[in-house]
Amino acid sequence: MFKNPPTIGEFQLIDSIKKFQNLSSCVIKGVGDDAAVLELDAKRYQLFTTDMIVEGVHFLKGTAPRSIGHKALACNISDIAAMGGVPTCAVVSIGIPKGLSADYIQKIYAGMSALAKIFGVSIVGGDTVRADKMTINVALLGEVEKSRLVLRSGARPGDRIFVTGPLGGSLKSGRHLRFIPRVKEARFLVETFLPSSMIDISDGLAGDLGHVLKASKVGAIIDAAKVPRNKGAGFEAALREGEDFELLFSLPSAKAQKLIQCVHKWSVFRFFEIGEIITLPVRLFIRDAGGRLRRIKPKGFTHF
Amino acid sequence: MFKNPPTIGEFQLIDSIKKFQNLSSCVIKGVGDDAAVLELDAKRYQLFTTDMIVEGVHFLKGTAPRSIGHKALACNISDIAAMGGVPTCAVVSIGIPKGLSADYIQKIYAGMSALAKIFGVSIVGGDTVRADKMTINVALLGEVEKSRLVLRSGARPGDRIFVTGPLGGSLKSGRHLRFIPRVKEARFLVETFLPSSMIDISDGLAGDLGHVLKASKVGAIIDAAKVPRNKGAGFEAALREGEDFELLFSLPSAKAQKLIQCVHKWSVFRFFEIGEIITLPVRLFIRDAGGRLRRIKPKGFTHF
Repeated sequence: MFKNPPTIGEFQLIDSIKKFQNLSSCVIKGVGDDAAVLELDAKRYQLFTTDMIVEGVHFLKGTAPRSIGHKALACNISDIAAMGGVPTCAVVSIGIPKGLSADYIQKIYAGMSALAKIFGVSIVGGDTVRADKMTINVALLGEVEKSRLVLRSGARPGDRIFVTGPLGGSLKSGRHLRFIPRVKEARFLVETFLPSSMIDISDGLAGDLGHVLKASKVGAIIDAAKVPRNKGAGFEAALREGEDFELLFSLPSAKAQKLIQCVHKWSVFRFFEIGEIITLPVRLFIRDAGGRLRRIKPKGFTHF
Repeated sequence: MFKNPPTIGEFQLIDSIKKFQNLSSCVIKGVGDDAAVLELDAKRYQLFTTDMIVEGVHFLKGTAPRSIGHKALACNISDIAAMGGVPTCAVVSIGIPKGLSADYIQKIYAGMSALAKIFGVSIVGGDTVRADKMTINVALLGEVEKSRLVLRSGARPGDRIFVTGPLGGSLKSGRHLRFIPRVKEARFLVETFLPSSMIDISDGLAGDLGHVLKASKVGAIIDAAKVPRNKGAGFEAALREGEDFELLFSLPSAKAQKLIQCVHKWSVFRFFEIGEIITLPVRLFIRDAGGRLRRIKPKGFTHF
């Protein structure tokens, strides 16, 4: 949410948008996390997120329509996962260029629907309009138990930093069109170890970790050698490219040890420890094999 | 919702989209009304709708950014009103062409925010992406007491048909950019007389009445002379142009009489009786001053 703002004033734009929120008392968390958090009932919060994908920016013209549909929903489900929640209902807007067949549009829905089934998402409505370039917007609701909500803002110095899978090369390999959002992993985490912070990696490890550091008012050190990378992806690709849609989370160090033991013993999921949270606010360092620290900008890929 | 489908298979496309819904048990009504209806708690339903507006289709390039923001939210609030509900929380996606200033984008939010304040809507999140043409998608939640929900499907033969204001000329006059959604009128109606069906007029009187007729499996006669028209708008404009965002509703005839008396006595709101519901499914007739019936197609303006 507001992950890829224009370079014109970037963070300044997000901050200025915040003033337009008019938040009512039922809003627990508005702009500034992967999804908004709304009061639902005594035990649960409702989560609410939206993502727009545009031809030529988030996918190329020749992309298979099923893949376009898949991605449009998957990146929203990933936002719900990043809060520790499960997705429930979606509405879908499609801007359709002239000359596209009904069959093509149905394939987009088919791709979306196949993924929706896996995660129990109901597609309950939408809008279809004319547009110059294929544009899909999904808005998605989710739910999370109040005790299991995870925000970006809870990382504390000493916490260990993890990711759920290898990073980099997502665009080149086409992985961004077929990734499975990490709902299971997120639910395992919130039901067992409860991360202190979590976010999905859409803008790149450095950028999304940057969002966590800013929200939590802390810094971080990443151990370069520990960052898992996809085949053919260098460290810079893993750090900056984005669209990986793996989860990035932090855990207090005692819990982190237990998680590592648990993973080792039961081979459940894949969690890679890649670094640690430090006190210096929003400072991000890379540690090389020799232990030397190099400060980098907490920024990843932007579409602008 | 799905109001302006492509001509390629139009209704066929909507019908085929329905098969992709995967509706869960918490979905009371999915695709096919102004908003989706979801189970919320013992007394209330949650409403969920979305609308996308695109430069060159729903507004022209030179349109004031505040007006663009106003319209993007207003047409969603209108959908919630058409169900009898009140709007609560919105998420906003904006596709931004290159070269637009942060100031321009902030004015869009300012227009949206001013309207949001009037109706108590919290803007809780969103997405900003690069696009060739300015594109705004709003997804909006609302609430309605279970006993006050109004669908398109409840119109019965003998019911009287009403609209909340004059029709036609909305695009030419710029009214589509500054209209105030009829939430107050809708709430007055559901709290007092409870319409048997309701819809907002976005595709034009003939088109939107057509949606009601299809959903209710009934027909209708419109008295041409009774249809209120905006200054400069002919009958055909009132019938077809759309973007009026007035409410169209039906009331059993006893309630209709009471509503007319009530309006006359207290001068509350403006409700115009324009015709009646008949048995013949999806047949729409215009009655002229001499009582002659002319059958017309239940279709309004489409963007395709």
